[in-house]
Amino acid sequence: MDTPRLVEKLLRGDRRALARAITLVENGSPELREIMAGLAPHTGRARTVGFTGSPGVGKSTTTNAVVRAARARDLSVAVLAVDPSSPFTGGALLGDRVRMQEHATDPGVYIRSMANRGHLGGLSWATPHALRVLDAAGFDVILVETVGVGQAEVEIAGQADTTVVLCAPGMGDSVQAAKAGVLEVADVFAVNKADRDGARSTLRELRQMVAMKDRADDEWKPPIVMTVAVRDEGLDELWECLDGHFAHLRDSGELAERRRRRAREEVQAIVLDLLRSRIAVGDDGALESAAREVAEGIRDPYAAADLVIKELGA
Amino acid sequence: MDTPRLVEKLLRGDRRALARAITLVENGSPELREIMAGLAPHTGRARTVGFTGSPGVGKSTTTNAVVRAARARDLSVAVLAVDPSSPFTGGALLGDRVRMQEHATDPGVYIRSMANRGHLGGLSWATPHALRVLDAAGFDVILVETVGVGQAEVEIAGQADTTVVLCAPGMGDSVQAAKAGVLEVADVFAVNKADRDGARSTLRELRQMVAMKDRADDEWKPPIVMTVAVRDEGLDELWECLDGHFAHLRDSGELAERRRRRAREEVQAIVLDLLRSRIAVGDDGALESAAREVAEGIRDPYAAADLVIKELGA
Repeated sequence: MDTPRLVEKLLRGDRRALARAITLVENGSPELREIMAGLAPHTGRARTVGFTGSPGVGKSTTTNAVVRAARARDLSVAVLAVDPSSPFTGGALLGDRVRMQEHATDPGVYIRSMANRGHLGGLSWATPHALRVLDAAGFDVILVETVGVGQAEVEIAGQADTTVVLCAPGMGDSVQAAKAGVLEVADVFAVNKADRDGARSTLRELRQMVAMKDRADDEWKPPIVMTVAVRDEGLDELWECLDGHFAHLRDSGELAERRRRRAREEVQAIVLDLLRSRIAVGDDGALESAAREVAEGIRDPYAAADLVIKELGA
Repeated sequence: MDTPRLVEKLLRGDRRALARAITLVENGSPELREIMAGLAPHTGRARTVGFTGSPGVGKSTTTNAVVRAARARDLSVAVLAVDPSSPFTGGALLGDRVRMQEHATDPGVYIRSMANRGHLGGLSWATPHALRVLDAAGFDVILVETVGVGQAEVEIAGQADTTVVLCAPGMGDSVQAAKAGVLEVADVFAVNKADRDGARSTLRELRQMVAMKDRADDEWKPPIVMTVAVRDEGLDELWECLDGHFAHLRDSGELAERRRRRAREEVQAIVLDLLRSRIAVGDDGALESAAREVAEGIRDPYAAADLVIKELGA
């Protein structure tokens, strides 16, 4: 399939074209440049929701329940499950996908997992690119689910319009842990497995945490929903929160602001990648000789970096 | 303490200066430029050893035992415990440090944990910088231990001269997992907790794995050591493997090659950081207006990136 044809099929929502395009994103293919150019005018329509939380809180189950909630409202949904690549795990994703088979025959649902390999922290434009592909393919809602619990995962979930942080009772440190770094990205909290002992106290802790943060009067205050995703309990409430947050984003102008910020990070990541490949050229380049001098203690790494930048012409 | 004075004290191995310098590395302080310039002529002496492996294999215990082995050989040792910052964990490091208190009164041992926060994947020059500081401070051996199990952790451990991959019996997938991505970085394997059931079969699996890889005749073949680090069992053998690998590195010329590669990555990371901060300047910069156009679908992210690079003069 040549690139113009791939783009054309993608815009019609063709599943094979979709699968192919996301594989190209995974592989950092050079064709992405032309594909993204073709898709650009057709983006910005989909709502994106990210899900993050400690392992065992029920991320896949909740994503799955949200897919059902969206379908009940006659909205088409894509799920993008991103694995920022732990070389020690791997395979977990596959298990998740099996659970998703419930939607396999529904043309309004598309589920795709994506590895995000490569450099330290992965390719930071990969998730935005994949969202762009799914958006242009016409899905109403895109859910982003991450595997694992690191900084990278939280940042990926934070690239959505709305970010849901999941907790669960009896998980010991799940709220405690949430304090450490996800409060900033949380637009909605869900206490999943809310039928278990300790759900009330998890709720209480989250409330305290949310209350502690200073906010302007017109600032969004993350609501907390109790869910039992496996039985669809609390899903209407969760959906209302998602709707509420999206309405807030739109009315406050924050939606455009967030999307601009996301585009900014995406463009910056591409710029740095392009510069990285220019710097790294050849065994006799400025970087190579600078590295030799640094390794031998003749030059310090900053002086070496200055040289490389000068050579780059910047 | 002004910077020249800090450098001077560092070179004498002063502990407060050391602690301060690593905090400056953690914070990405602007003073690093001057510090690294002062330290450069005094680097390249220390041997570095990285430890990685799944949680529960006994990384801290093994590091601790290797510290004892080094001290028994009258070598001074620094331990750098790097946490590439999972917002969900945190605190684990502290517990590890408590275990290290055995060496608290030994002037030949320095233990320091370092967070590696910030952008996706952390600051990739942070570990090389910290190694540079400890090297210039005169330690004979520097051990790098990572918390967690992601790609970033493996890459950090891989920044050492010698990388030890730890496994343990009865950990189910510890060998399986090791296959996925750490075989490339492993110079030495240690099967820790070797007194437990299943140690033999873990050893066998590792042997098969090592045997499967094609190697040139003069290429290093990772040895596998059985240890019970908590009782110092197998530590002499492990130490011999570390010595053997280091001798191989030196004799084959690979040591210089590895250190050049490390310097290359360090310089490249600094270059990209410097360029990133130049790109990101101001609300009316090229990046900002490009991001706006991308968010509005007027321009695709690659065309936008080209514009930003042109503006940069590169």
